[in-house]
Amino acid sequence: MPRPRIVIIGGGFAGLSAAKILRRADAEIVLFDRHNHHVFQPLLYQVATAGLSPSQIAVPIRNLFARRPNVEVRMEEITGIDTDARVVRTDGSEAKYDYLLIAAGMTHSYFGHDDWRPYAPGLKSIDDALEMRRRFLLSFERAELETDEAKRRALTTFVIIGGGPTGVELAGALAEIATKSLPSDFRNVDTSQTRILLVEGGPRLLATFDESLAERARIDLAGMGVEVRLNTFAKSIDAQGVDFESKESGAERVDAGTVFWAAGVKAESIARNVSAQNDKLGRIEVLKDLSVPGHPEVFALGDIAKVVDAHGKETPGVAQGAMQMGTHAARIIAHEIKDGPRSPKARPAFRYKDKGNMATIGRRRAIADFGRLKIAGMPAWLLWAFVHVAFLIGFRNKLITMIEWIYSYITFRRGARLITGQKTDAASPAE
Amino acid sequence: MPRPRIVIIGGGFAGLSAAKILRRADAEIVLFDRHNHHVFQPLLYQVATAGLSPSQIAVPIRNLFARRPNVEVRMEEITGIDTDARVVRTDGSEAKYDYLLIAAGMTHSYFGHDDWRPYAPGLKSIDDALEMRRRFLLSFERAELETDEAKRRALTTFVIIGGGPTGVELAGALAEIATKSLPSDFRNVDTSQTRILLVEGGPRLLATFDESLAERARIDLAGMGVEVRLNTFAKSIDAQGVDFESKESGAERVDAGTVFWAAGVKAESIARNVSAQNDKLGRIEVLKDLSVPGHPEVFALGDIAKVVDAHGKETPGVAQGAMQMGTHAARIIAHEIKDGPRSPKARPAFRYKDKGNMATIGRRRAIADFGRLKIAGMPAWLLWAFVHVAFLIGFRNKLITMIEWIYSYITFRRGARLITGQKTDAASPAE
Repeated sequence: MPRPRIVIIGGGFAGLSAAKILRRADAEIVLFDRHNHHVFQPLLYQVATAGLSPSQIAVPIRNLFARRPNVEVRMEEITGIDTDARVVRTDGSEAKYDYLLIAAGMTHSYFGHDDWRPYAPGLKSIDDALEMRRRFLLSFERAELETDEAKRRALTTFVIIGGGPTGVELAGALAEIATKSLPSDFRNVDTSQTRILLVEGGPRLLATFDESLAERARIDLAGMGVEVRLNTFAKSIDAQGVDFESKESGAERVDAGTVFWAAGVKAESIARNVSAQNDKLGRIEVLKDLSVPGHPEVFALGDIAKVVDAHGKETPGVAQGAMQMGTHAARIIAHEIKDGPRSPKARPAFRYKDKGNMATIGRRRAIADFGRLKIAGMPAWLLWAFVHVAFLIGFRNKLITMIEWIYSYITFRRGARLITGQKTDAASPAE
Repeated sequence: MPRPRIVIIGGGFAGLSAAKILRRADAEIVLFDRHNHHVFQPLLYQVATAGLSPSQIAVPIRNLFARRPNVEVRMEEITGIDTDARVVRTDGSEAKYDYLLIAAGMTHSYFGHDDWRPYAPGLKSIDDALEMRRRFLLSFERAELETDEAKRRALTTFVIIGGGPTGVELAGALAEIATKSLPSDFRNVDTSQTRILLVEGGPRLLATFDESLAERARIDLAGMGVEVRLNTFAKSIDAQGVDFESKESGAERVDAGTVFWAAGVKAESIARNVSAQNDKLGRIEVLKDLSVPGHPEVFALGDIAKVVDAHGKETPGVAQGAMQMGTHAARIIAHEIKDGPRSPKARPAFRYKDKGNMATIGRRRAIADFGRLKIAGMPAWLLWAFVHVAFLIGFRNKLITMIEWIYSYITFRRGARLITGQKTDAASPAE
């Protein structure tokens, strides 16, 4: 009998966690990802803000499985899933599966305003982060050259839409760079006068954190000069700035050279390829064992899955949740490869174990929420740094990231202040 | 009397060396560069071959002059020079000067075949290096997916045109990656069978080195599996490969997925804006003091200058030469700011001091040419590494580069194996 074939879509936290367990199973594994690298998402904002280099938070996926000949990594985009024929398709090939793990994650959602995308890039991939880095560094360079005061003001105005962890971390990092790293480098512009707006549609920042910590984050950000606007929505975004609508203060126009999107997300469209129920974010609603209703051989994991666990609580879209789901599904499959298939009901139910929630705001400023234990300030910041270094893949990445952070802490400098991705001489030939 | 204004065009080795001396002079300095960063060119090939990250070999220019309020750095491209009015122009502004230092460097020259450019990118900037990295890593990814044997062979065929230091270093690094770093990562393609051709129009590699060392490099490369073709020219380059013409063996077609250009260079076009004599590479022919004939207040430095020094020898286009020229011109100017102008004849003549010439070929393989002393192999390789780390700007870059090298040496892995620069979600708005 041939070994069972397991197809994994996505090399994020969920897909990798599953592959790490399944590589030891008596099975052939094919892992698809559109990128050649796994990204440590929680530190992506540091690449966007010139603190770290891309290679410090990303590793080539195939290298993680170099010693496992039963794992094949394919850098390809999945274009279709046929759950009846048990096959996934790409542009040029197809792969049969006995088990399928869908862990393709989420993408930006502009709430139906896809025309905002060019003016307000989001942060999901290394390329997104480099585009953000390019834009914010270039804004200051342009402000330095600008002689018109109003235009210069707009060039040093940054709007971040979305008050979740990504928005908060971006706003904090930008504020620190503008006030601490850059001022003495510029002659014609006072970067410490940079205007940073963090705009959130809901009544508070960091909805997944305890309210007291979210308020602490708001106060910390305000202390760093960030203007936090709650209950405020973007009504339109263009190349010159943003029109807002606030419940309290009505309409407002802000001219801004740089706008970042940290608000809406939706499931990758491949989720609709599975004959399953999708929630309003396009996510696949799974059973308690994480399998797709009607298809016990198909699992949806990580951000692309809507999971209500055995406690009746929805699992949040964080790295931990994705990893735990990957491990859970992989263990079910590994067990069945040995002992034969079971019905979804006979399988163990997924239980999310919340190990806590952290966000950093700036130098010596962070918050950490461990249920009953809540900490903020310097202790939370040190803990945040320690945990994030510990979870980075590879000794080299851990070491170099620590060096970069210590260097930044001492010198106030950012290690990767490069503007790249400009029009190059070498245009790519049509591919 | 107002302080004299000194304009420097280019933040490469020549421009920076000059600025470092002049920043202490009683003068206003404006440094123009089209990039926001200075690049340590000798290690650019390591970024192209995934060994180092861009930020390890590049530093933001303005940060180098943060504590010098008399130095203004402008990220702008010079579009014109008026030597009569003593003014340089950019798209949106102009700057008057009392002294002008032109150190804009060189760009690729395709010998009149600019249509080759998209198929054979060269290596001058960080963006060039990232484009090379993207292409060579993507070739292996595509080969892994390819089922047609001939196409797979073409995808794992790399042609490097030009047998100078850049071509030799690229060929050696690619050979090592293919045979040492990648093999166990791939399932469908045997990367150790990668074909690498290094093609040189002249009768030998490394024309600026002693012949015995160049021959040693050729033998080392051949031992690593690189096919070295001498006396061979590209006749045409397209998306599928290269047509060669060799003096000995006639015409040959090589199907290759990736072609890199390390052959021709020419002076940046701004050189033609100066009313001076240009040689066939477009360089400005300068007087013995490095000033432009007829304009004692204008100097041309580095690769953009053709310099025949007091010994009657032409200064080679290397980092050392550029740095020495920058220092020489800056000292003349600093002296004149204090004691008044002199005629070019009364100024000291530039003398290039050759401190030696080095190139690395691979692991424990390098050559170093110090005139009478010539070394090769492990000692040359250690010396090469030591010297290059020593000349990197910034303690952090030195430290992290050393760590990357030690890591690569021990593990055979490359630290920056990321494919980036793909079509991003966020298309840039028209700029």
